[in-house]
Amino acid sequence: MIFRQLFEASSSSYTYLIGCPSSKLAILIDPVLETVARDLALIDELGLTLHATLETHVHADHLTGARKLKHLSGCQIAGPAMDKLPCRDIQLDAGQTYTWGQLQLHCLHVPGHTDSHFAYYLPGEPGMIFSGDSLMIDGCGRTDFQAGNAAELYQSVHQRIYTLPDDTLLYPGHDYQGRHVSSIQQEKQRNPRLKLGISQGQFESIMAELKLPQPSKIQFAVPGNEQCGKCPDDVPAEFKGPCETNQQG
Amino acid sequence: MIFRQLFEASSSSYTYLIGCPSSKLAILIDPVLETVARDLALIDELGLTLHATLETHVHADHLTGARKLKHLSGCQIAGPAMDKLPCRDIQLDAGQTYTWGQLQLHCLHVPGHTDSHFAYYLPGEPGMIFSGDSLMIDGCGRTDFQAGNAAELYQSVHQRIYTLPDDTLLYPGHDYQGRHVSSIQQEKQRNPRLKLGISQGQFESIMAELKLPQPSKIQFAVPGNEQCGKCPDDVPAEFKGPCETNQQG
Repeated sequence: MIFRQLFEASSSSYTYLIGCPSSKLAILIDPVLETVARDLALIDELGLTLHATLETHVHADHLTGARKLKHLSGCQIAGPAMDKLPCRDIQLDAGQTYTWGQLQLHCLHVPGHTDSHFAYYLPGEPGMIFSGDSLMIDGCGRTDFQAGNAAELYQSVHQRIYTLPDDTLLYPGHDYQGRHVSSIQQEKQRNPRLKLGISQGQFESIMAELKLPQPSKIQFAVPGNEQCGKCPDDVPAEFKGPCETNQQG
Repeated sequence: MIFRQLFEASSSSYTYLIGCPSSKLAILIDPVLETVARDLALIDELGLTLHATLETHVHADHLTGARKLKHLSGCQIAGPAMDKLPCRDIQLDAGQTYTWGQLQLHCLHVPGHTDSHFAYYLPGEPGMIFSGDSLMIDGCGRTDFQAGNAAELYQSVHQRIYTLPDDTLLYPGHDYQGRHVSSIQQEKQRNPRLKLGISQGQFESIMAELKLPQPSKIQFAVPGNEQCGKCPDDVPAEFKGPCETNQQG
């Protein structure tokens, strides 16, 4: 397996490149519009072909690079079927496996941050879980918009993620403090919101009290991502940069 | 590869089990005397045979399980040749690779916590570095006894560990705060003592000012580990428990 963890600084987002050494086919999980050129250059440098992009969810804090990547490379766009986005080429169902080359990801439905949020599990020794904005390192995604629901997130983490092997590596969709990777056991032991012993009621109280500001990009990021990363007309000037080269396709 | 990260609570030590799926041969990095029975039970449960134990260094904070494991399983005992310990069956040289089944570890000399300290690098995507008490998560081993040297530790980390691929997973010999795994890039970005930008002089000052107490077991642990984990006669009563079943061999 060929693996790279990539970071987009303005939204503190992680994109994951996973390549199959025999078929030379690669996927990108949660690509970001701003870093499309970097991602394609790396794929080229590694001698890979971009097979598909996979979204964990419809992001509110950045525009996905999926549409632009498809335009530039001819890749397919994949994501949860329950998002009901016609711009996607591949509709993934909860519980299915997604195969490219000799690699497979398991699609886990982990609602809570959004109602149709997926996590992708790559079996291995140790396995890897790409959790998006569900479980994060010492934290989790917020649950106060896009049909988020703290009770659902608690159940998703405990039923679908904490049931993976303890050594499984946790690769989140974001980190705001320079942390790159954790493990299931680490989160069970020390996640301040979701360690074992915190009840669902306690978790719901923690989430209800966060009082976070609205994400600065939500007004255009959600409708833009519902078109797989097409910049809507009303993008504020300060966010327009990457959009200006993105109007194709 | 078969992989398990195991924890011994009284010394907050990590032991690593790495097994070759085709040959069924396993090694243990830094086994601990207290958890020998657990380790052997797991190896049996996984259908593996213990091939060897590997030490990163002569520990001051716990007795190694190497001697007891050899007695119970017939495995070999390996460690840095420069420790000059006749009780070891395999003397590893800096820069060599250690092979068991179809797996290989690269032996890196990373002095600083002790003068003969090794780290073991398992290539892969991502690779894994078993760093012992050299680089740790958001920290590092102390440098104030056993020929420790802060200048050497700084050079070891920067020249031998930070030169590994950024995605390489860091598996330390201890963690005292429930952290299990990190990456090279994470430590470069946020290790309070060893992130990029901290000079060697600054690091030496940080280490000189730590003023840590002596490890409680050092008086018997170092001579005991120089015999690959034989309990010396002068083990204090409170530490005697695991020794009482360890006088064989």
